[in-house]
Amino acid sequence: MADAAHGPVLALTTGEPAGVGPELALRLAATAPSAARPVAVGDPALLAERAAMLGLSLSLPELAPGEPVPAARAGVLPVWPVALREPSRPGVLATANADYVLETLDVAVGACRAGHAAGMITAPLHKGVILDAGHVGFTGHTEYLRDACGIDEVVMMLATDRALHAAEPTWRGGGALRVALATTHLPLRDVADAIRAPRLARTLRILHGDLRRWFAVERPRIAVCGLNPHAGEGGHLGREELEVIAPCLDALRGEGLDLDGPLPADTLFTPRHLAGVDAVLAMYHDQGLPVLKYAGFGRAANITLGLPFPRTSVDHGTALDLAGSGRADPGSLAVAVALAAEMTSRGDLKAMTTP
Amino acid sequence: MADAAHGPVLALTTGEPAGVGPELALRLAATAPSAARPVAVGDPALLAERAAMLGLSLSLPELAPGEPVPAARAGVLPVWPVALREPSRPGVLATANADYVLETLDVAVGACRAGHAAGMITAPLHKGVILDAGHVGFTGHTEYLRDACGIDEVVMMLATDRALHAAEPTWRGGGALRVALATTHLPLRDVADAIRAPRLARTLRILHGDLRRWFAVERPRIAVCGLNPHAGEGGHLGREELEVIAPCLDALRGEGLDLDGPLPADTLFTPRHLAGVDAVLAMYHDQGLPVLKYAGFGRAANITLGLPFPRTSVDHGTALDLAGSGRADPGSLAVAVALAAEMTSRGDLKAMTTP
Repeated sequence: MADAAHGPVLALTTGEPAGVGPELALRLAATAPSAARPVAVGDPALLAERAAMLGLSLSLPELAPGEPVPAARAGVLPVWPVALREPSRPGVLATANADYVLETLDVAVGACRAGHAAGMITAPLHKGVILDAGHVGFTGHTEYLRDACGIDEVVMMLATDRALHAAEPTWRGGGALRVALATTHLPLRDVADAIRAPRLARTLRILHGDLRRWFAVERPRIAVCGLNPHAGEGGHLGREELEVIAPCLDALRGEGLDLDGPLPADTLFTPRHLAGVDAVLAMYHDQGLPVLKYAGFGRAANITLGLPFPRTSVDHGTALDLAGSGRADPGSLAVAVALAAEMTSRGDLKAMTTP
Repeated sequence: MADAAHGPVLALTTGEPAGVGPELALRLAATAPSAARPVAVGDPALLAERAAMLGLSLSLPELAPGEPVPAARAGVLPVWPVALREPSRPGVLATANADYVLETLDVAVGACRAGHAAGMITAPLHKGVILDAGHVGFTGHTEYLRDACGIDEVVMMLATDRALHAAEPTWRGGGALRVALATTHLPLRDVADAIRAPRLARTLRILHGDLRRWFAVERPRIAVCGLNPHAGEGGHLGREELEVIAPCLDALRGEGLDLDGPLPADTLFTPRHLAGVDAVLAMYHDQGLPVLKYAGFGRAANITLGLPFPRTSVDHGTALDLAGSGRADPGSLAVAVALAAEMTSRGDLKAMTTP
């Protein structure tokens, strides 16, 4: 699926058909020959219609997973077809197409697991319409993919595109700023109780392992935020650092992990502290992501760690109001594709050199 | 106290004598003629001794508050003298000098209130040694100054130095990123319950008023973060936005405040959203300060709003391990002085044009 001449095959699910996903995939294929070979997973007629709507002249050859994928070329987007359940108009959600969206994910996961793709990239889906369609308990891509792969735990990490930061100090790991989360989508009042040592340890082991596996970092150095302001200031501003986080980090150091912390978040996110760091673990969503999004200038991508293959994603939603207008910014999707390509190349490299 | 030729007189308290405060003030005076007239508040013998230790050739004329302060000149640092209680060595704390540190604050507040200074800048003090000296309940500069001025509520805001961001988009308000906090030094688990409408309204009124008064922003636009990730996502990730924050903002809009939010923090801190914004209000410490410190590259300053005069401060501690070495970075103090100068100049301008 990946060779030096052509780059890895990547499944690119085009997401909610009424949103901006399909057109972002088309715009990317129209302009940017990729270091990888992205294959769109979606309805070919939908893609052709949106291409016409945007005035893009594109070839959309249909392939089956496992058929050879040609080298990427500007103006060509190969498609693994999945049929819409009913026609889709930009901006108009339809519950009938919820199963279509989920099927694109199943096809991509199947391709990755069968070795037809080296990894996958996801355009945004719309959680509400999938819930409305009767998929009770659906909480998003990450958990769906986790369950589809039959595993217990994954880790959400966001990364910036290093190319945008040429003028800034180069962080280790190629200049990317990477921020993983110990907890994700919880009300703030539930966060402190959710920080427990067993889960924190599993999260850090996944982060450590996947930095080695997909980012080819031999000995990852991870900086860990405290939970409280000033990392608790010796217990004066909260005791979770003393009672939960620090002992957990100590135990993991005994396993050979290279961990720095718990550190005050507003100390950690400065050049001096980031300089030697491969990834940051923030304790919760708004401790880590505002700085990541600020640093990435809106061009960041989401990565799911812990899966048997790399999965990256845009960091934005379906933008129903922009769908069909051609005004949606494909920047985050470009970063997601570049990151998946980088991860799969390095993963392959590693697989080739490690028996 | 301020004239166009010489700039405003600013009281600069030199802070904990065993820390880096005295030498930072000296280094600043040695190299940078200021747009203002900073006057060091501290022990003249201590300052002379530290200058000799660092090999700085400085003139340290002693003045009394109210005496004319000459225009700033490189190599000259006027001093309003306060006597150490016992000699101080770099890095060695002494409880006997806790009262000295507090007296420097009293002198600066007195000078500001008497009109001998237009504002004050504080070098770091050491909370622990002041507590150890028996000042039970001492929690820091901000609360001490609040009580010294006999007022109930102040607001903590941090700002970056715009000069460092020439290559970045210019935010309104002259390119500075300003982040104020609705809560400050609380354990994370106490934050949600501390977000209450009356206090939030007072905080926003102080922020609005002081942006007009000291930053000469005619009609301040303030972006307000939600408390929960995704600002609660319509109640799915917490209800404080719906029940507390949004109704409070609506009421304040009725008073004429220009408020945007509650917004997800990781949406708000992107160039598109920051472009029209004079200040951000974050709900808690680690939601707002990591991005501010990242953006400021370690060169940010702390501002207390709500006092009858501007007060700025470095954003770092006493750095006892660096004291006397000459290796401490005077960047944040330079920003604090520049900000106080800017605030007092604009405040004066405003006072001249508004009857």
